[in-house]
Amino acid sequence: MKKEINIGLLGFGTVASSLYHIFNERKKEINSLFSVPVNIKKIFTRGNSHPVPENVKGFLVKNIDEILEDKDIDIIIELIGGIGPAKGFITKAVNNGKSIITANKALLAEHGEEIFKQCLNKNVHIGFEAAVGGGIPILRAIKNGLAGDSIKSVYSIINGTSNFILSKMTNEGGKFEDVLKKAQEKGYAEADPSLDINGTDSAHKLVVLGRLAFSTSLSIKDVIIEGIKDINPLDVNFSKELGYTIKLLGILKNEDSRIEIRVHPTLIPSSCLLSKVDGVFNAFFLNTKYAGPLSLTGYGAGGNPTASAVMGDLMEIAGKIINNDNHHDFIISENINKLKVKSKNEIISRYYLRFSAMDRPGVLAKIAGILGENSISISSMIQKGRKVEGSVPIVITTHEANEEDLFKSVKLCDNLDVVSAKTVVLRIEDRIN
Amino acid sequence: MKKEINIGLLGFGTVASSLYHIFNERKKEINSLFSVPVNIKKIFTRGNSHPVPENVKGFLVKNIDEILEDKDIDIIIELIGGIGPAKGFITKAVNNGKSIITANKALLAEHGEEIFKQCLNKNVHIGFEAAVGGGIPILRAIKNGLAGDSIKSVYSIINGTSNFILSKMTNEGGKFEDVLKKAQEKGYAEADPSLDINGTDSAHKLVVLGRLAFSTSLSIKDVIIEGIKDINPLDVNFSKELGYTIKLLGILKNEDSRIEIRVHPTLIPSSCLLSKVDGVFNAFFLNTKYAGPLSLTGYGAGGNPTASAVMGDLMEIAGKIINNDNHHDFIISENINKLKVKSKNEIISRYYLRFSAMDRPGVLAKIAGILGENSISISSMIQKGRKVEGSVPIVITTHEANEEDLFKSVKLCDNLDVVSAKTVVLRIEDRIN
Repeated sequence: MKKEINIGLLGFGTVASSLYHIFNERKKEINSLFSVPVNIKKIFTRGNSHPVPENVKGFLVKNIDEILEDKDIDIIIELIGGIGPAKGFITKAVNNGKSIITANKALLAEHGEEIFKQCLNKNVHIGFEAAVGGGIPILRAIKNGLAGDSIKSVYSIINGTSNFILSKMTNEGGKFEDVLKKAQEKGYAEADPSLDINGTDSAHKLVVLGRLAFSTSLSIKDVIIEGIKDINPLDVNFSKELGYTIKLLGILKNEDSRIEIRVHPTLIPSSCLLSKVDGVFNAFFLNTKYAGPLSLTGYGAGGNPTASAVMGDLMEIAGKIINNDNHHDFIISENINKLKVKSKNEIISRYYLRFSAMDRPGVLAKIAGILGENSISISSMIQKGRKVEGSVPIVITTHEANEEDLFKSVKLCDNLDVVSAKTVVLRIEDRIN
Repeated sequence: MKKEINIGLLGFGTVASSLYHIFNERKKEINSLFSVPVNIKKIFTRGNSHPVPENVKGFLVKNIDEILEDKDIDIIIELIGGIGPAKGFITKAVNNGKSIITANKALLAEHGEEIFKQCLNKNVHIGFEAAVGGGIPILRAIKNGLAGDSIKSVYSIINGTSNFILSKMTNEGGKFEDVLKKAQEKGYAEADPSLDINGTDSAHKLVVLGRLAFSTSLSIKDVIIEGIKDINPLDVNFSKELGYTIKLLGILKNEDSRIEIRVHPTLIPSSCLLSKVDGVFNAFFLNTKYAGPLSLTGYGAGGNPTASAVMGDLMEIAGKIINNDNHHDFIISENINKLKVKSKNEIISRYYLRFSAMDRPGVLAKIAGILGENSISISSMIQKGRKVEGSVPIVITTHEANEEDLFKSVKLCDNLDVVSAKTVVLRIEDRIN
């Protein structure tokens, strides 16, 4: 039996400094729950982190190996982020028999399966609740709560910055660029927001989530990714008129063991609760085989919420080490599936199309003709007199269609001389939950 | 190391037959995840359950002791319900070293702490995710996900029948009795719906939830309980006019280690997402110290959702037994608190009051006078000409007031000869999440 549990903390940025604070605030409770003391023993920073308070300086080490090679350290909490050095640190720590807690979604999305295997080989634990959905215990809900169920689909809002921007555009109007600027001023978007708004951050999280949801191997290359920077107020307003709200969704589906994994702006019914999850909130709407529809909502980012998830992992892993429990989560067992992931061409969806048509007779007939010839069936159509930049918007929603057919016919339309700009294509999901 | 895990199933009603079905449908996956086979070995029914299919009859035992005393049975799944014999069965099973999974909220609310102690003494596991919120993994979210956080409050819809009735009354109108009748016809309310509509069922679940949320000892006697049978369409409509929706809420609060635990119809802002959780859905809106606001929504009852939660417990407990892990959940440790629970007189709340006033001059002055003398400060007032059964409704919402002061002044008002019926008192909660 161990005499104490020691933690090495990598990083002292927003999440790590919150964690340090929470850990100390809760220390009495933590130690009353365990039979041995749990301590943060050493901290390594790369110098570009938050100012380290005086009382923390004594824990700082200059060389990270003072942590990774310290035989008395049981758990490494990696909050440095990025793929670069973090991967090397974790690999070394695992090889030295240390368990890992990390919030590093990029690293897990890119190299998670390799890291899981290392953990399995060295018989150490890994916790990464904080990597997806910040303070929302979504991974635990899936891996424990739904361990005996079967997940059919997940519709998620997993990027607070994008959701903040789209909510503002929906509720208050405004162009993408202007709203982004406001979000940056308020600290809801970073100086370089590209990973958030181009869908990459959502895709990283979705890969980590999808592996757990379907117990399958998944790669970032499997994800269809589209961001929100081309979302136009016109589309926000037409969507509203059609009874829809545009959200950047991370979507997972498992139909007969064929997986869909995609991140893109999506029209969802304005009557559905997911459409009302606004601002920096994240949400996960699941459809399960037995439990039915389930949803979890909360803060998906920020120091305290993310640190709260790290604390949950810490309590679990410290408990396992103290109790000498080598039981691994199923996801890092050797039994994970290799389910086939659908390519873009295999997706079936409903679509929202906004054509920019010249104001001439016969335009609609031409567009409708091309759609019909390519098996794209029209569900609804809006054409109003108003001109936008010399052309008239024609909005068409389709019934379910194959993505390959859809893009083929849109391309043919875009080649018509009566279509004056690239057609906007957005996907529609009607049955969220 | 055990060669197999055997289960004894008590009951074959709605949940148990769903469980049996799911277990068999998922058997291949379950057995691929564990190193040893997991089987349902024997089933005991009390005869008043669902018809037992032919292929199940071979598992039936006549005498329950054939399960409780079978040395090869590791886990008892108790789905008989009620307090009566269930308690005896569980006690005997625990004494014989078997772990327990149960959905029995009434039993856990009344005798949970005694049962937890027995489990601790005999070093067996107990799982009861299915007792609260059906298929929603709320207990796991609290005991694992938020293990390192601190819960400040929980606002919950935990009775589907009441929520179905109130949603109908809100969205479609109608009197309580008529809507209840419709709910019974549709199978959303039982022939004897009293435990659902009088708040007892919610209170049972809230006690089980509160113990986990605050790691404290709680008794059903601690709960302030009011049901929905006196909710009048007048109050539904006045609430709407004031921007509120009436929901039967289970409320838990922890303010400076003083607990509030109460079940009552509550006015909540119609802008808040909890107010939009309609029909038979259940929901848990938590405020946590670090993770911030969190919400979980899903089916709170029914065979498959409840059985899904039982399956989650089964996967966890089977895993623990196979891995020889005697690590207990914190709630059944000896470290639980004995936090003080506020009595009714100590509650501070905002209130909605509907006075039935005679149509005479000076009535409002009298009522307002009494409220003022008793430190009840008025926030808003609605008085309209319309007469209802010979009197005029005067609706007053108050600022925060002490419950004792409030009821004292309402009693004084009710004694006025210009007040013709008992005043309706409902609580208001403005800050859900």
